[in-house]
Amino acid sequence: MPPVVAIGPSSFAEKDDTPLRMLEAAGCIIKPNPFGRRLTESEIIAHLEGVDGLIAGLEPLNRAVLESAQPRLKALARVGIGVANVDFDAARDFGVAVSSTPDGPIDAVAEMTLAALLSLARQLIPTNAALHRGEWAKSIGLGLRGAKVLLIGYGRIGRRVGELLQAFGAEIFLCDPALSGTPQDVNVVELNEGLALADVISLHVSGEDCILDAAAFALMKPGVLLLNGARGGLVEESALLAALDSGKVAGVWFDAFWEEPYTGPLTRYEQALLTPHVGTYTERCRLQMETEAVRNLLRDLGLPEFAS
Amino acid sequence: MPPVVAIGPSSFAEKDDTPLRMLEAAGCIIKPNPFGRRLTESEIIAHLEGVDGLIAGLEPLNRAVLESAQPRLKALARVGIGVANVDFDAARDFGVAVSSTPDGPIDAVAEMTLAALLSLARQLIPTNAALHRGEWAKSIGLGLRGAKVLLIGYGRIGRRVGELLQAFGAEIFLCDPALSGTPQDVNVVELNEGLALADVISLHVSGEDCILDAAAFALMKPGVLLLNGARGGLVEESALLAALDSGKVAGVWFDAFWEEPYTGPLTRYEQALLTPHVGTYTERCRLQMETEAVRNLLRDLGLPEFAS
Repeated sequence: MPPVVAIGPSSFAEKDDTPLRMLEAAGCIIKPNPFGRRLTESEIIAHLEGVDGLIAGLEPLNRAVLESAQPRLKALARVGIGVANVDFDAARDFGVAVSSTPDGPIDAVAEMTLAALLSLARQLIPTNAALHRGEWAKSIGLGLRGAKVLLIGYGRIGRRVGELLQAFGAEIFLCDPALSGTPQDVNVVELNEGLALADVISLHVSGEDCILDAAAFALMKPGVLLLNGARGGLVEESALLAALDSGKVAGVWFDAFWEEPYTGPLTRYEQALLTPHVGTYTERCRLQMETEAVRNLLRDLGLPEFAS
Repeated sequence: MPPVVAIGPSSFAEKDDTPLRMLEAAGCIIKPNPFGRRLTESEIIAHLEGVDGLIAGLEPLNRAVLESAQPRLKALARVGIGVANVDFDAARDFGVAVSSTPDGPIDAVAEMTLAALLSLARQLIPTNAALHRGEWAKSIGLGLRGAKVLLIGYGRIGRRVGELLQAFGAEIFLCDPALSGTPQDVNVVELNEGLALADVISLHVSGEDCILDAAAFALMKPGVLLLNGARGGLVEESALLAALDSGKVAGVWFDAFWEEPYTGPLTRYEQALLTPHVGTYTERCRLQMETEAVRNLLRDLGLPEFAS
């Protein structure tokens, strides 16, 4: 019986079918995502029927889901870094191997973070919209040289964002409880200290716990810019909305939301730059992560990898 | 009789009045821009009546204008780099000193160029607009690592843009007939060769001659991104519109136009990111250029500069 591999991410192999060809070359039968969007718990349970391996996105992979896919499901290969949607204890209990692709997204997410920061700093969206309406309305923006940027979380992506910001001449502050060693040319601060001095705050932690609640927003400087390309749950939605209403936060970028697809109140704020979880969506990055996930899955299913 | 100084740029000292206080401290009477926009030829002639020095923007300072301001006008101090709006022969004939502020804009214009490039590369504007309408529409963007970028013009700003792009891992190609020496880590190419290989083309020349005409667009790769933060006249408008219509150019940024304020056909193209000549509009950059222009003007008028 040939191995069956289900696909979770809605955009898998959209621009380049190399990852699908790798699975076919290894003899796999492929079950595409039937909805073209993130699957719900009941949908992923149905999708995993008769499946040996899953190319995983951010669908819920909790104990109930993993249990329902037994005894056949043997491996989950996440396309991306974050694996907070996977119940690791359940995976171990059912003997399901879990892998991810931590290196693939670094450049793409870091570039997207800079794209969002520069767009907010120079007010590209309102200025461009005005000119398309025939209004020539100059406004003064924030320059990055000398700007104080707090990086919350200093893993692979946080470090890359810091490198890019240093090329622009920004002053970098970081806080990360898991930090080992002292990085060069970067100031290590406590969270509250960093929140109080930053012109720009950027989230790069991998967990799910809320970090920015009303008390945290109260510490920030008026007019701060907030960047969140990590996880929606790191920020308390009601506290963020209040900070936008009061002008405490002058601009915000969210690429990851409390629930997705997101249609919540942030969409009503002009000063919110919103992107649909596309931090990793460059051709190079998608292909790199997808082929890496396929290799991980073939390895965990004990299947051979043929040169593509 | 106290010296009278007219102000040309509409946004002079808008966010920080230090430059005006420097002029007042030197005993000058200040004549503000009466229209809050760039002055026409007849308006600047009227504005220069009874004026000793002009803090200059991009208003026309041709022979007729400079002649009408005689015998009193002694100095023009441009806030910015470009002085193509000044007739230097006429200024010499009438004994009018001309100065500019070439270093002030480097960071601000280079940052704006990266802001525009990243915004186009990751389709921030259409993606953000869709999400604000409740549509969750992912699309795959261009990553900068490994992207081939042609810099046309490699003066102060072109070099700074090149440095920033190298931090992102882009591959830089440059052409500049005035280039002296061989820069490190950069490929020097002929214009036609560069146009044919580039994923991104960015204009950083200081002249006014048209560089990109229909023949130049014909050489470009389909889907190229074009950045123009220098001067509108460097690009033939009809050839650009044809290249947008055909899809040859996938995205374009203009910050400087054929005439300003611009209300022309480019405003009808969604794939055009348009900003109202605000490349230098950061607080730090404006203040630096404005105080430098005031110092130049006071020197050329033989007036003392008091510490501010």
